[in-house]
Amino acid sequence: MTNPRAHQGLTNRQVVLAKRPVGMVTEDCFGTSEIPVPELGAGEALLEVRYLGIDPTIRGWINERGNYMAGVAIGEVVRSNGVGVVVETNNPDEYPMGRAFMHLTGWQQYCVVQSNPFPPITMVPEGIDLMDVLGVLGHVGITAYVGVLEVAKPQPGEIFCVSAAASSVGSVAGQIAKLQGAHVIGIAGSPEKCEWVVDDLGFDACIDYKRDDVAARLKELAPNGVDVFFDNVGGELLDTVLRRLALRARIVLCGDISTYNLEGPAPALHNTRYLMGKRARMEGFNTLDYWDHYTDAAGQLAAWLAEGKIKARVHELEGIDRAPEALVRLFSGEHLGKLVVRL
Amino acid sequence: MTNPRAHQGLTNRQVVLAKRPVGMVTEDCFGTSEIPVPELGAGEALLEVRYLGIDPTIRGWINERGNYMAGVAIGEVVRSNGVGVVVETNNPDEYPMGRAFMHLTGWQQYCVVQSNPFPPITMVPEGIDLMDVLGVLGHVGITAYVGVLEVAKPQPGEIFCVSAAASSVGSVAGQIAKLQGAHVIGIAGSPEKCEWVVDDLGFDACIDYKRDDVAARLKELAPNGVDVFFDNVGGELLDTVLRRLALRARIVLCGDISTYNLEGPAPALHNTRYLMGKRARMEGFNTLDYWDHYTDAAGQLAAWLAEGKIKARVHELEGIDRAPEALVRLFSGEHLGKLVVRL
Repeated sequence: MTNPRAHQGLTNRQVVLAKRPVGMVTEDCFGTSEIPVPELGAGEALLEVRYLGIDPTIRGWINERGNYMAGVAIGEVVRSNGVGVVVETNNPDEYPMGRAFMHLTGWQQYCVVQSNPFPPITMVPEGIDLMDVLGVLGHVGITAYVGVLEVAKPQPGEIFCVSAAASSVGSVAGQIAKLQGAHVIGIAGSPEKCEWVVDDLGFDACIDYKRDDVAARLKELAPNGVDVFFDNVGGELLDTVLRRLALRARIVLCGDISTYNLEGPAPALHNTRYLMGKRARMEGFNTLDYWDHYTDAAGQLAAWLAEGKIKARVHELEGIDRAPEALVRLFSGEHLGKLVVRL
Repeated sequence: MTNPRAHQGLTNRQVVLAKRPVGMVTEDCFGTSEIPVPELGAGEALLEVRYLGIDPTIRGWINERGNYMAGVAIGEVVRSNGVGVVVETNNPDEYPMGRAFMHLTGWQQYCVVQSNPFPPITMVPEGIDLMDVLGVLGHVGITAYVGVLEVAKPQPGEIFCVSAAASSVGSVAGQIAKLQGAHVIGIAGSPEKCEWVVDDLGFDACIDYKRDDVAARLKELAPNGVDVFFDNVGGELLDTVLRRLALRARIVLCGDISTYNLEGPAPALHNTRYLMGKRARMEGFNTLDYWDHYTDAAGQLAAWLAEGKIKARVHELEGIDRAPEALVRLFSGEHLGKLVVRL
């Protein structure tokens, strides 16, 4: 038996928002603080955080106005997905000792969870490497899952194009589309990334947007146009793909990472009129609207992961204090696979 | 009995495309020609054209590249919706003598129809004033019908906003949305137009985009945002409405008349990112994809028209030679209701 009061008196090291980024986020926007691990209330449990997922959406959360969630206040712990293990519990049915959970843990060493939180907390199936959890089974994997299967719905033989193809969402989205029988074309930002998604993940092709003429390559690879565009990038790249749509194409707006660090307004789209000619649909979605799919999605993704049908790759930095550095790296695009911080 | 050869030797006066318009269409883009009425082949019938519908889509058809249909060639009869009456028939089952049909008659006095043409030809129910046919039962009414009921699907109590509200498509779309229990806000270009759609057609409100601050008025009239935007205008107006979307809004791209006479590219949209935040959908559609709905739609529209549930207003010009003048007037926006040419 574990002593339920074992963590009283321990210190919780946190990374907090020190000032708002203007344009590209920098490490000096963050500071650290240390507070005592609090006493648990009824129904609560204490997670010891093992991994933090460094997701693009954090950049929106640290703006004053936030994005689909409210902005993090100055001095607050930076909001973040994470994986933690229950080290103390007042709610052993929901949070059994020793089990791992995915949650909006924030950038901190310890995190208190209430009963039935929203967004929902997901128990990690046993036998899964915790390092894979954030890249495939967490918010990122669920986003790819519902974005592809509930919104884009690619049919066998359809051309499925995904931007930021080597990103955590993009790489999982492309692999799920491939499992549906779609012909998958990635768009990514380096020869290494293109090679990875084609050779290791089984994409049919990948366009290097920094080196190739995207419009010309798309015309070559999809002469009849793109049936589904799963877009994580927005801006100019989205505008280019709008000119290469197939009849009744679906554009799923999952993210627009190209605009997250802009000081001014996002670039305008010039080619939306093609939606009319092609009877196409452009649609935003947010994983939070699909929380009732979380358990099923995580179960299916875990099974695919175990069977080797979906592969994950993790780029790991060590120590809570390196979370800001990891976020800055996320936007420089030098990593390959899911960026995580190991605590 | 009518003499089946009665029209042999008669002359068919046509308005043809003389040159391509550059920018705003002008009357000197058109010329006339006279050819003999041809002898009918097997299964064919001869329509004597009674009314021509002057629709914005004609502006796209007379461009070299066309739009969703191929461009009209120089010297060809201008493509147009029309209503004609069967005056000679080799196919009395499909085309009984004396019955009226809606068809892509073109700008001409007589038109030969084959059996089972595409787009489909619609028999006008008896007892309907032929003048109302093009505004409500023709391509325009069907467009409003499928756009509202098959694409936008407004629910009771939802805010349904329609641009070019006093246009033939816009006025019918708003009235159909109203019949579905939606709260209908029009956007139109003059006090007279706004008055007409509110006082005569029963819209809940109408914004005069030439005199009002559209964004401010929308905020007032729909503080929680617009659930459906049925857009016939595009450009800047669409961009404004994109900032006033409700969660899970649907934007139906029916037309973008603001861009049809532009020489340069269409104006860019700056606010498409709101689609993501609002999980909204922007979708193009084309009535031609719904040809299997034509008969049902025309039947329902005819019933609504007969019951006074949908009202039409027609602005009429007389004589085939005035078709070019009518098209120019369509874009100056001085008419109220459906522009038709009576032959």
